[in-house]
Amino acid sequence: MTGSKLDGVRIVLVDTSHPGNIGAVARAMWSMGLARLILVRPKNFPSAEATVRAAGADALLYHAQVCDSLETALADCAWVVGTSVRSRRLPLPRLTPRSFAARAVQEARHGQVALVFGREQAGLSNRELDQCQAVASVASNPDFNSLNLAAAVQVFTYELQLAFFDGTFDPVPGSPHKGAESTTAAELEGLYRHLEQALTDIGYYDQKAPKLLMRRLRHFFARARPDRTELNILRGILTAGQRAAGKSRD
Amino acid sequence: MTGSKLDGVRIVLVDTSHPGNIGAVARAMWSMGLARLILVRPKNFPSAEATVRAAGADALLYHAQVCDSLETALADCAWVVGTSVRSRRLPLPRLTPRSFAARAVQEARHGQVALVFGREQAGLSNRELDQCQAVASVASNPDFNSLNLAAAVQVFTYELQLAFFDGTFDPVPGSPHKGAESTTAAELEGLYRHLEQALTDIGYYDQKAPKLLMRRLRHFFARARPDRTELNILRGILTAGQRAAGKSRD
Repeated sequence: MTGSKLDGVRIVLVDTSHPGNIGAVARAMWSMGLARLILVRPKNFPSAEATVRAAGADALLYHAQVCDSLETALADCAWVVGTSVRSRRLPLPRLTPRSFAARAVQEARHGQVALVFGREQAGLSNRELDQCQAVASVASNPDFNSLNLAAAVQVFTYELQLAFFDGTFDPVPGSPHKGAESTTAAELEGLYRHLEQALTDIGYYDQKAPKLLMRRLRHFFARARPDRTELNILRGILTAGQRAAGKSRD
Repeated sequence: MTGSKLDGVRIVLVDTSHPGNIGAVARAMWSMGLARLILVRPKNFPSAEATVRAAGADALLYHAQVCDSLETALADCAWVVGTSVRSRRLPLPRLTPRSFAARAVQEARHGQVALVFGREQAGLSNRELDQCQAVASVASNPDFNSLNLAAAVQVFTYELQLAFFDGTFDPVPGSPHKGAESTTAAELEGLYRHLEQALTDIGYYDQKAPKLLMRRLRHFFARARPDRTELNILRGILTAGQRAAGKSRD
């Protein structure tokens, strides 16, 4: 299991009605590297529907712990956060998924962390929220704050994954050119000279402002940052154009 | 509708097999304030299952646009991002959901933004990704990178919602230059067709792999993101090359 860093964080589902939701939660969790699922009084579990919806994350269901009470599910936890869609008058700190995840990284160093989700329709009761040290919710459309249970778990586990792994799951973003050979400034200048000559050869030039045209094209190519293969293609095209215009130099 | 700020961002689903997923996507979108859904060749739509899973977001389904081709779905878009779970060797910028959302805020000021999701099993084809200017993916468990379609949409729309409604983000480098008129996907496709014809006319083509060549050139131009003036310059150059080759069409 790769998610070992996240073993200190458990997801607790209370009174879940639809087994399909349990399966979808397992899939959401495992895709983000979380493995510990605790079910408090699930209506129908184990269930074929849960297994189908888990789509390969069924090991999580197999290892899921089933409890009779929330107290049991949370007994060994050091930090417990309940989720809620409604804004209630609770004297508890309110967290976003992101601030929850940042804090969970700290808390998991000292002890077990639990994130608790309530019933599909009614959420957690006030009594259950009283067992939590904070309340977290996903900001949503005020006209339609009806996140599906698994969707809510997906958002929270997505933030947990980012906070715990710090993007190490990720192919480094923003480096479009892995492995491609980058070109030097001198090679780019060579391309620009070739381009200018080819444009003359094929009879294309902006009569009013040839310099402005070349500047525009330089900016364009600078933005694209051609790698060596692309540079060779571009020069090949220019040479073909010159040849077609009867201005071949070779 | 509260999502007016997000009206410039559309979600495009290509070849979706299961109507339940379309409904779950609608629910995920609307809970985050997104309303524009475009379906390219859905296998089964409209469908009762989609409506049930939309759970109150069924107005989105009612207004969803159904298209025969991805080209049509993207025709009026200025910035198109495809999603992918596999890390492929594509010379396209790679984005995380967060960096995508930050950038989308900038892009939506200039034109329509599209986020494209592929088939449940196979994702987007390379040909479809060639119509995109960047690729975005959710970092996930390397042992189980199997996010459900609606779960992936949930993560992206969650980040969009934070970026559009919550955050004051720094301008992201690489956005279209200030003041320049951005081009649509249809205009870019027109440029590629012209380019292919011009390359034939001037006698330049890679005999072994003409398709690979065109893909490379598409990626190159997608990276540079020509504005309207540059597009006109490029087409002018192509026309001049064709004329020089004695293949003038006017």
